[in-house]
Amino acid sequence: MLPEWVRQSCADISAAHREIALARQAQLTKPAGSLGRLEHLACELAGLQETEEPRATNVPIVIFAGDHGVVAQGVSAYPQEVTIAMMANFAGGGAAISVLARELGSTLEVVDAGTLAQSPIPGIVTDKPRHGSRDFSQEAALTSTEVAFALECGKRAVLRAGTPDVLIFGEMGIGNTTAAAAIAAALLGIGAEQTTGSGTGVDAKGRALKTRVIDQALVRHGLTKPGLSVEDVLCAVGGLEIIAISGAIIAAAQRRIPVLIDGFIVSVAALAAVRLNPSCRSYLLASHRSAEQGHRLVLDALGLQPLIDLDLRLGEGSGAAIALPLLRLACALHNNMATFAEAAVPDRA
Amino acid sequence: MLPEWVRQSCADISAAHREIALARQAQLTKPAGSLGRLEHLACELAGLQETEEPRATNVPIVIFAGDHGVVAQGVSAYPQEVTIAMMANFAGGGAAISVLARELGSTLEVVDAGTLAQSPIPGIVTDKPRHGSRDFSQEAALTSTEVAFALECGKRAVLRAGTPDVLIFGEMGIGNTTAAAAIAAALLGIGAEQTTGSGTGVDAKGRALKTRVIDQALVRHGLTKPGLSVEDVLCAVGGLEIIAISGAIIAAAQRRIPVLIDGFIVSVAALAAVRLNPSCRSYLLASHRSAEQGHRLVLDALGLQPLIDLDLRLGEGSGAAIALPLLRLACALHNNMATFAEAAVPDRA
Repeated sequence: MLPEWVRQSCADISAAHREIALARQAQLTKPAGSLGRLEHLACELAGLQETEEPRATNVPIVIFAGDHGVVAQGVSAYPQEVTIAMMANFAGGGAAISVLARELGSTLEVVDAGTLAQSPIPGIVTDKPRHGSRDFSQEAALTSTEVAFALECGKRAVLRAGTPDVLIFGEMGIGNTTAAAAIAAALLGIGAEQTTGSGTGVDAKGRALKTRVIDQALVRHGLTKPGLSVEDVLCAVGGLEIIAISGAIIAAAQRRIPVLIDGFIVSVAALAAVRLNPSCRSYLLASHRSAEQGHRLVLDALGLQPLIDLDLRLGEGSGAAIALPLLRLACALHNNMATFAEAAVPDRA
Repeated sequence: MLPEWVRQSCADISAAHREIALARQAQLTKPAGSLGRLEHLACELAGLQETEEPRATNVPIVIFAGDHGVVAQGVSAYPQEVTIAMMANFAGGGAAISVLARELGSTLEVVDAGTLAQSPIPGIVTDKPRHGSRDFSQEAALTSTEVAFALECGKRAVLRAGTPDVLIFGEMGIGNTTAAAAIAAALLGIGAEQTTGSGTGVDAKGRALKTRVIDQALVRHGLTKPGLSVEDVLCAVGGLEIIAISGAIIAAAQRRIPVLIDGFIVSVAALAAVRLNPSCRSYLLASHRSAEQGHRLVLDALGLQPLIDLDLRLGEGSGAAIALPLLRLACALHNNMATFAEAAVPDRA
């Protein structure tokens, strides 16, 4: 049984505040519409935040890490111990997301949502129901209780984040593109060939293996049949950090906090979140389209158009962090530009 | 006669520094290549700046403004006095580029390179050979002496900018998409239909008029014949702020200063600069692809791939300013991430 809060509705976007924002955009000293998607972004944010001054100033970053039993099948280019080593690197300040968080003035919290680490790591929140998921090529990855625990883990992280303007969630977990590709294939009702990419960098042979492992697992767990619940999918092929992000997205949206969505894995977590609770959809802002095969399909299923497309495929929340300045500049332009009247600039006839 | 310095070669990119940067990227704690185009950008910048620590910290913004006689033909959606009013808005802090400069910590200099303003405007550098260009539908827009003056104007702005890491040039001038579309058509040897867009927002009828005015001018000035010099084109259909930007780009590249190129008009100025002095090409970094028709063709001719594509069409250097954080984050990641050895993270086999 999933926690009851997971299904509770999120508030609608405030149409009134969005209208006020649209009216303001039309008065700013620029040709109407000339700031393109940044105008739209500022107006959406104003509606979501119920404000006349949309903000993306306070934007904490939370990374959820997990390990994956399916790594035993040779699906990753990197050894499994990298998950734990990278958690330490996040906390130590040397990882990409650590550098980005410093540059952006964002706090960075790292949550061990299910890695193989046997003891707590300094500077990292440990909040996990077990050490890694089971190998889904052999058995169900998680029990229903473990899935529920991971959703709560995500919610707890949101509650710790205070009152942010926007949230960014990231992930780390060797093998997690395999779990994400399996979840995406099951939720979208398509074969693994369409959702499986190179992850951290497997070659064509590695990718073929990954695809085969996923397709066989989808059949083994009955995920190619229609009518399965999201919970069935997450138990069969889920990953703890991915499910934690789904929970975090729902919990954020229920508190009117928009979420800037990262790449393939976070987008798959968002897809699961939307399938569990469709009302959270409007709180999703897409940051980038990653180089990972399958991301485009997931974004399309979510109806999200990314801001940037720079062949990123790192994860960690890095794509969302890299796009954050665009959101901040959209807000600054919206809030701080002069109107035609204020600047005494003649408008068009 | 163009000034002699215009043709003087720019230094080659430092292959040694680029190689060092590429080697460093391979050691950083991330899957090889996973930061996509940001890795490439940092390495190019390292080579251009001859450094192991590429920087985009000190990035002044210079806007050149000019008026255009061809506005008499009804090619713009906005009245001509907007050029001067917007110069005052730049200096007064209310324009999009003013807001962006503040957010980015960039200085903003506004140069009247040829507007109709009859007296100096407070806070604006006046550096012009005449008040506006002539109506190129009736006569040549500029004399050779005026073109030379505008190129020098651009160089003077670069000299005033001190020792920046990167430069951003912007433009303002009612009617300047018409001049830019004419220059682009002449330099690329194509019809105005392919280079003419909606500018600040003319409708289909307005765009058809604009296209016809340009095509007739190209014929009148003999610009559809092969073998014409860039100088011939700039005299016939040029604009003072556009030519000033061409001069500024060449002068910057000669001082090893990379230039983050804005939208359609600045890209056309860059195309003219590269035709005058091909060695400046490697110092151009593309920021965005604008919604203005023709920008794609000009970027392709320059061999530039933009970083963002957000339907921007404002000008003022705003697209480059909006993309600047991406350049800065690329540098921060390159300079500050830990290597696999430093972070004791296992690399792939």
